[in-house]
Amino acid sequence: MISDGLQGLLSERQVDSPVARVVRALSGHGAVSAAQIARTTGLARSTVSTILGDLKRSSLVVEVETRSPGIGRPALAHSLNPEAGTCLGVLLGRNEVRIVLADVAHNVIADVAIPLERDYRPDKATRTVKQAIDNIYKEHSLPFSGLLGVGFAVSGPIAANGRIMRGSLLPGWYGVDLRSTFEPVLQKPIFADNESNCAALAEMMWGAATGVEDFVLFKLDLAIGGAIVANGKVLTGIAGTAGEFGHMLLDPHGDLCTCGNRGCLQLYCSGATVLSVAERRLARAITLADFVKTAQAGDIGFQRLLEDAGEAAGRGLAAVGTIINPGLFVISGGMAAAGEMLLAPMRSSYAKYTLVKPGDIEGPVPQFVTGRFLDNDNCMGAVGLVLRHHGRLS
Amino acid sequence: MISDGLQGLLSERQVDSPVARVVRALSGHGAVSAAQIARTTGLARSTVSTILGDLKRSSLVVEVETRSPGIGRPALAHSLNPEAGTCLGVLLGRNEVRIVLADVAHNVIADVAIPLERDYRPDKATRTVKQAIDNIYKEHSLPFSGLLGVGFAVSGPIAANGRIMRGSLLPGWYGVDLRSTFEPVLQKPIFADNESNCAALAEMMWGAATGVEDFVLFKLDLAIGGAIVANGKVLTGIAGTAGEFGHMLLDPHGDLCTCGNRGCLQLYCSGATVLSVAERRLARAITLADFVKTAQAGDIGFQRLLEDAGEAAGRGLAAVGTIINPGLFVISGGMAAAGEMLLAPMRSSYAKYTLVKPGDIEGPVPQFVTGRFLDNDNCMGAVGLVLRHHGRLS
Repeated sequence: MISDGLQGLLSERQVDSPVARVVRALSGHGAVSAAQIARTTGLARSTVSTILGDLKRSSLVVEVETRSPGIGRPALAHSLNPEAGTCLGVLLGRNEVRIVLADVAHNVIADVAIPLERDYRPDKATRTVKQAIDNIYKEHSLPFSGLLGVGFAVSGPIAANGRIMRGSLLPGWYGVDLRSTFEPVLQKPIFADNESNCAALAEMMWGAATGVEDFVLFKLDLAIGGAIVANGKVLTGIAGTAGEFGHMLLDPHGDLCTCGNRGCLQLYCSGATVLSVAERRLARAITLADFVKTAQAGDIGFQRLLEDAGEAAGRGLAAVGTIINPGLFVISGGMAAAGEMLLAPMRSSYAKYTLVKPGDIEGPVPQFVTGRFLDNDNCMGAVGLVLRHHGRLS
Repeated sequence: MISDGLQGLLSERQVDSPVARVVRALSGHGAVSAAQIARTTGLARSTVSTILGDLKRSSLVVEVETRSPGIGRPALAHSLNPEAGTCLGVLLGRNEVRIVLADVAHNVIADVAIPLERDYRPDKATRTVKQAIDNIYKEHSLPFSGLLGVGFAVSGPIAANGRIMRGSLLPGWYGVDLRSTFEPVLQKPIFADNESNCAALAEMMWGAATGVEDFVLFKLDLAIGGAIVANGKVLTGIAGTAGEFGHMLLDPHGDLCTCGNRGCLQLYCSGATVLSVAERRLARAITLADFVKTAQAGDIGFQRLLEDAGEAAGRGLAAVGTIINPGLFVISGGMAAAGEMLLAPMRSSYAKYTLVKPGDIEGPVPQFVTGRFLDNDNCMGAVGLVLRHHGRLS
């Protein structure tokens, strides 16, 4: 069976073999040329060709045509055979679990959200996830044996030892080890990371940062999240909180934040902050998506709220630019749907407050772009965890 | 000749061979065990043993005894044969060049500073460096043929293309490519990086961050410098300015900084800021070293200046802690000689202003330690560039 071959290649024992390196390059990047694989793996071009030949004969790899945007003829590339296996990405959210089933070519086969009461506990989650997965595999007539692993995106920091830290949106999960919680029930390899780190992985593997080794993801949703990718790896930090841009100090005399500090960035530009003003004005509740749509439809008050939020975010990111100096900021989350209405003021205030202004130097200027996966970046990144062997709990 | 063998192994053509990986592990870490080499290189333990045997037979590697601090018997480790070659580390400073000659086991053989007029130019520097190097090799009766390469530490940002950027302390060097400047004269491989990045490399290879893959170097000298090391690599950023902590915004309504922004960290805690207050009080000039000594001798006014500087620095580093969350801060530069007088207030204000406070979580708390190389970290790091093949200009 095809997926057995792939599971063997992706197993820990084979992790350093040339063939496993080629498979990981394929699983991590989608359709790629032999030359790209040689570059990524550091293997000789001739070695890569031999391995690709073997993998094609055993049906693990298929040839596909790719077209670059713009000019040029279609190029020959290689991709894992979509039938070679499946992966699951699971978001453990505040009041839901969401499950994405994808093949190894990261085509989404199913995407299911299951609402749960706030403060649901691990035992409830394991039962819910197990049953939902069984249903999904039954419904799509797929063999459970082809499942390569399950990635979890968690709304909270995860420490290096694999345990969920304090300060997550899942207070009842403090100290929980995801592998020992889910592996006995699911009987498959378990991977996990913070949801913002997963989001960065999705953008890096298939989204707005494809092929970029150094970038910053800034997620403006109800809360602010983020991730720093350096040399192709997501930084975690010793407390698992790297990329928590929402708690950068913007004003030392500002209001008190939930974290116990004053004047944190999230007090000035998170979706929750913006909605609280919008709702006072409307005298009714409104979702972030509807808020953005109303601004885009011409509401000048809501446009001003987006402009102010962009200005504050740019000021926070200016410090990130000064000390990390990335070439790309991927702006993600529900507010990013506002596009240039948010990004234009962000770019201006970034330029005003950061150390190296656009024009100071020859060469590339930091880019601000909207993320590709505004809605399901966390689940897609959790799928990516499985494909990349990234964030494995040890 | 021994050094010919080593030069071959360290050449670009061999860069991916197992034997070159072993040599780089040895050159990058000093005396290490076979097990550590296997871990660092990802090679099988048996492969490492075979390679070490070959290298010992050809006199490129010698066995040394190491003693851990504390208990335990001496352990057997391997080191490059100090006679296998030499490296040069050169600081291009504001008004001097400084040259350190070291063997491949990074023992310093010579350390020479040559004063130059401010705003010296590349042609003057190449002549000065060439002559000084010839003198040093003659004086120590060493063969120039054993020189493996020359590393340059530059008081300014270096772009990815190897050119010196605007904003360096060497205004006449803007746009200069160090390799094409020095390689024709020195006829040896040239490596280069920003001096703070070199300082971080020295601390990582042989100093306060030995064996640590993720840390922040914060250099408090007359100016403020710094570097971020993530996964064992120094971050550079697209403009070569990553780690410029001195220009983080501390107060949006603060004084104007030389960079064109307001309220930058360096206005509150750089050596220049502190000395300007001290000199007003003394009504005469004083060096940073004498300032620190006077504070340590009991001057309560100077002690307060150090305390305030530490407090401000801790506030700036708190933001670094929030978004990068490193486990170690190495405090370097002339002010770091003040030790706890500076570090204690830095720790307190860090804890007050960062997101994850010590005690919030189980497990490790960020450490603040004084650097090992307060005086010649840049030159030692430039030696490290050669040994690590790190920062090579391409």
